[in-house]
Amino acid sequence: MRFSLSVKIKFEQMKKVSVGVDIGGTNTAIGVVDDMGHVLTKDNIATPIHGDINLYIDELAASIKNLITNAKLLNEDLEILGIGIGAPNGNYYKGTIEHAPNLSFKGVVPFVDLLKARFDDIEAIALTNDANAAAIGEMMYGGAKGMKNFAMYTLGTGVGSGLVVNGDLVYGHDGFAGECGHTTLIPGGRLCGCGAKGHLEAYCSAPGMKRTAFELLVQTNDTESPLAKHSYNELNSKMIYDAAVEGDKLANEVFEITGGYLGQGLADTVHHNSPEAIFLFGGPLAAGNLILDPTKKAFEDHLLSIFKNKIKIMPSKLNAGDAAIVGASALVLKELEK
Amino acid sequence: MRFSLSVKIKFEQMKKVSVGVDIGGTNTAIGVVDDMGHVLTKDNIATPIHGDINLYIDELAASIKNLITNAKLLNEDLEILGIGIGAPNGNYYKGTIEHAPNLSFKGVVPFVDLLKARFDDIEAIALTNDANAAAIGEMMYGGAKGMKNFAMYTLGTGVGSGLVVNGDLVYGHDGFAGECGHTTLIPGGRLCGCGAKGHLEAYCSAPGMKRTAFELLVQTNDTESPLAKHSYNELNSKMIYDAAVEGDKLANEVFEITGGYLGQGLADTVHHNSPEAIFLFGGPLAAGNLILDPTKKAFEDHLLSIFKNKIKIMPSKLNAGDAAIVGASALVLKELEK
Repeated sequence: MRFSLSVKIKFEQMKKVSVGVDIGGTNTAIGVVDDMGHVLTKDNIATPIHGDINLYIDELAASIKNLITNAKLLNEDLEILGIGIGAPNGNYYKGTIEHAPNLSFKGVVPFVDLLKARFDDIEAIALTNDANAAAIGEMMYGGAKGMKNFAMYTLGTGVGSGLVVNGDLVYGHDGFAGECGHTTLIPGGRLCGCGAKGHLEAYCSAPGMKRTAFELLVQTNDTESPLAKHSYNELNSKMIYDAAVEGDKLANEVFEITGGYLGQGLADTVHHNSPEAIFLFGGPLAAGNLILDPTKKAFEDHLLSIFKNKIKIMPSKLNAGDAAIVGASALVLKELEK
Repeated sequence: MRFSLSVKIKFEQMKKVSVGVDIGGTNTAIGVVDDMGHVLTKDNIATPIHGDINLYIDELAASIKNLITNAKLLNEDLEILGIGIGAPNGNYYKGTIEHAPNLSFKGVVPFVDLLKARFDDIEAIALTNDANAAAIGEMMYGGAKGMKNFAMYTLGTGVGSGLVVNGDLVYGHDGFAGECGHTTLIPGGRLCGCGAKGHLEAYCSAPGMKRTAFELLVQTNDTESPLAKHSYNELNSKMIYDAAVEGDKLANEVFEITGGYLGQGLADTVHHNSPEAIFLFGGPLAAGNLILDPTKKAFEDHLLSIFKNKIKIMPSKLNAGDAAIVGASALVLKELEK
């Protein structure tokens, strides 16, 4: 009787944590995250250009083990629930990274299997793409808590998305669903990074905003705009934001136009899955209402009447600096729910 | 012991049937459907223009009761599992028909509640929109048997769609998901029946094909085409098909262009939910490869490389004449699975 009581207290003191890994084109961020979504310890390693996946997995495994050791120094009663990974072209069903254009590892990489071979004491290791991981993070720790149907768009170098239907992430038949950045917004329009034309990503990513700024410069010949002082390679979305805040008309118009494009795309996500809310995440969201207001307006303009004035467009409530790690770690919790 | 055995034999002889109701703008089709998807008895009543919902429900209930009686004459051991209804702007969660533009019943009609009041012996009465009902029919009795992720597009006067993710129909947060006919295909393009511009429905419905035919006549001034002999109000998609089969160049081009539009739209459904297959249903599909080939080509052209050459575009395997009734009746089976 006394023994059983002591075990129970011990169990309740155990802090449950997951490891989140976010693999980007140049940098891999790793963190130990508790079940409230707080990052206890974190680290960064280079995502290598050498293409040797085994070398990289060794480095990654060493970093994870080191972080777990450090986290246990802070709190000895840690229970490691698993490892969640967000990666470009991550296939949830197979645990693979497949033909990721911005990584040096070619072909189909059995990432989860390779990592499992280094962690025979950890059962739950799962992988999906970075935007899907962000959506799960939003569901577990962010603004989508309790929502069964929502969407998340991540705006950065590209545009990613994660869709949740009936409380589960939509992986589709092959593990790759949620590529809304590659829906066609303008038939025959701008060349997208994927090689096709007119995709949402070519208009609503940070580089897409830069392209819109130069398009406006060309159309208006506005040599007074501070944006006219930078080369095509120099100009970035932060400079457009700064100019807009200073009152530059052209920079403000970039936000208006970008929101117009984004609102059209978000409406089509509603016409597919009718989410309760769409969360927006990433650098351009730092502009707040500069981007949100025109997005909401175009969104409502494009919605079928049965959907008007009831679907929320909101910035993500995840902490921008840790969101990728936290989202990846949340994948473990979602796995353990099953 | 003997009693229990006799009850079991009796039970196995019972034929389980559902009633399917398809509410169209002018006609309501009703059928008693067995659990193999065969229609045992069917009837049609006018969808009234008088706007009196109670009168219509009385007529509908009388027709259903009459059909059940007739079906029982054929097979006395019928078990009525429930009533499934497909209706424009049907809300699955609430059992309501809401602001349907082509029906005379205005506002929000509590259709399921009204029908339940006439059938206190039938528990399972469910309603959704007609395209969703068709998708459930395809899943239960058609080409989507065993598929967990697929989409269905119904091409007719309008374009409807039903999406299935993880084995369940996507109803969204409000019961209205799956309105892919109203995604924007051509920004600023043709006026859609809903009042917005450039929607897929304005290009890929049967009237959309007619519009494309006249657009081509305008562009080419092809006075030799048999399509040039009909007024705008006379020309229909069947005439375009007949002309195409006879070798008319312009009519063939209408199918090429329509397939091009449709392929673009279907690709964006893949970029959202990554279905295993997309089923196409409706009048224009009678043209077979005339419409399927250009659709498949444009579809592949618009897909992100991870999705290419693996997603099937197929005609529905439901019997065209009975599909709406059968789909609506299948909604009951799907309900009883829960």
